[in-house]
Amino acid sequence: LNMQLEKIQVWPDRDDVFLQAYFQEEIPQIEQGRTRAAVLILPGGAYLYTSDRETEPVALRFAGLGFHVFVLRYSVFLKSGQRLPDWSPRSIDFTQVNPGSAYPGPLADLAQAMNRIREQAGRFRLDPERIALCGFSAGGHLALSMGVHWNSEFLQNLVPAAGGPVRPAALILGYPLTDILSMRQAMRSLGPEDAARIDFWHLFCLAFFGQPDPADAELAAASPARHVHADVPPSFIWHTAEDATVPVAQSLSLAQALAGAGVPCELHIFEKGPHALSLADESTAAAPDQLNPAAQAWFGQAAAFLRRHLPLFADPS
Amino acid sequence: LNMQLEKIQVWPDRDDVFLQAYFQEEIPQIEQGRTRAAVLILPGGAYLYTSDRETEPVALRFAGLGFHVFVLRYSVFLKSGQRLPDWSPRSIDFTQVNPGSAYPGPLADLAQAMNRIREQAGRFRLDPERIALCGFSAGGHLALSMGVHWNSEFLQNLVPAAGGPVRPAALILGYPLTDILSMRQAMRSLGPEDAARIDFWHLFCLAFFGQPDPADAELAAASPARHVHADVPPSFIWHTAEDATVPVAQSLSLAQALAGAGVPCELHIFEKGPHALSLADESTAAAPDQLNPAAQAWFGQAAAFLRRHLPLFADPS
Repeated sequence: LNMQLEKIQVWPDRDDVFLQAYFQEEIPQIEQGRTRAAVLILPGGAYLYTSDRETEPVALRFAGLGFHVFVLRYSVFLKSGQRLPDWSPRSIDFTQVNPGSAYPGPLADLAQAMNRIREQAGRFRLDPERIALCGFSAGGHLALSMGVHWNSEFLQNLVPAAGGPVRPAALILGYPLTDILSMRQAMRSLGPEDAARIDFWHLFCLAFFGQPDPADAELAAASPARHVHADVPPSFIWHTAEDATVPVAQSLSLAQALAGAGVPCELHIFEKGPHALSLADESTAAAPDQLNPAAQAWFGQAAAFLRRHLPLFADPS
Repeated sequence: LNMQLEKIQVWPDRDDVFLQAYFQEEIPQIEQGRTRAAVLILPGGAYLYTSDRETEPVALRFAGLGFHVFVLRYSVFLKSGQRLPDWSPRSIDFTQVNPGSAYPGPLADLAQAMNRIREQAGRFRLDPERIALCGFSAGGHLALSMGVHWNSEFLQNLVPAAGGPVRPAALILGYPLTDILSMRQAMRSLGPEDAARIDFWHLFCLAFFGQPDPADAELAAASPARHVHADVPPSFIWHTAEDATVPVAQSLSLAQALAGAGVPCELHIFEKGPHALSLADESTAAAPDQLNPAAQAWFGQAAAFLRRHLPLFADPS
């Protein structure tokens, strides 16, 4: 009796884009012929890299609730774990970047990953309509992008869904980047003392738009908070008020948009703590300020939200 | 980046006794050269079998907190998943039983399993002094037996510890069987209407003492609650007041004994619920009465207890 770990490549010709799957072993007396729900985790990293702190530790936490779990390593700009000394465009080695990280590349990865999961459905008593997306930071951007575009012509032209569009069952968004256009607007009021922040913005734009200074229309098109509609999945959002990387204002605006569209929504803003807390406990803390007992509550709150919107077991549809 | 699942045989010549290991993958920025604590899970099953409901789902829950986790399948009476139609000695096929399940056989298995884990310590940055035991029902009996005997001459003669006796770092005991003698005393007041319960008692005695009617002295020797001393590890106990299999009185008496000996102790008695709730949630419920939101709290309380007595990371000793 033990879980199965599998690496599932998303595209035949791309080694860098893959799912790490954690399939639960069936215990027949518990499973009783029902299907088991799944959570697909999207780590953050500003589309420059994917952050290990938001992968396996989070996957195991959801596996501990009984879900099948997947972690998607999607297209990012910097190859093979490269880190930049000063996170500015000046330090990039352009022979070591991946143009596939530009929008909507990562969204295409996610759509195809969901096709791949659907192929496994019979083998593991999975139901493709019972998969929640859990994204952090840029991964939250990716999750919400799927949440708003899952039934769009745009996405069906990009990567057709094998058996027709599938709505994610729920979204769990941790300190998500959801409104890129508002980031640029905030940049405009910065002065020379904010040079490092401005550098990072241009680096992010290079990664995600293929150029350091994209037009407002491009930023708006890639800002999923601006495209919310009534068929967006039930969404759980958490953020810290002190977040200096993705302003908490984005999550407040997103909750406004969801409430306005009648989408079931839960929002928790914790007072203290920097960006990228992940589980906010010992298992993911790489620095003292990433240990945050108050913010740790998000996981239990998200589990309760999932229990309402995505029961662990259901009769096959 | 992914965890490693390994099956570790405990004795060279015994296929039925093994550890299922869930080794956490090291994330260097989190690990920072420190050792990672572990939890060793002992499922219940009256020494007749080991209950799947108390193995992997619980292991993944602790893995979700960041611990290395082990599940021990120790010696039990019935071979290869055999289940008895009426749980009485009359239905046993004596060609299909394992005499190694008699006390102290399973305790020897556990002691040797801890030796085997110690052999892996360097490979996975484990510290053999930082392993908690988490046992359910009969597995709780086994955990507490190690908790009281770890530094005894008795255990050192039975299975010498490779580098000297090692104290478990903490005990997590779910509806534990801890006082077998008191069970027999309760049996004496039963009448003919309790025939099924009396049958089960004799079956358990066959499994654990090799005879249906052992002497009081044998029962007392194998009742760890009667052997508590000051060097028993910090102990967390939970039980339901309605438990009709292992009376809650045993956990109350155990807590009395621990308090008397000055052992740090935490006890939670939930009002409702049958024996063997395991996680008490959807992931382990095989029947409606095994879903119990109030009792689900035990896991979070145990996690907080471990955080105090067994921090996830520590500098190498």
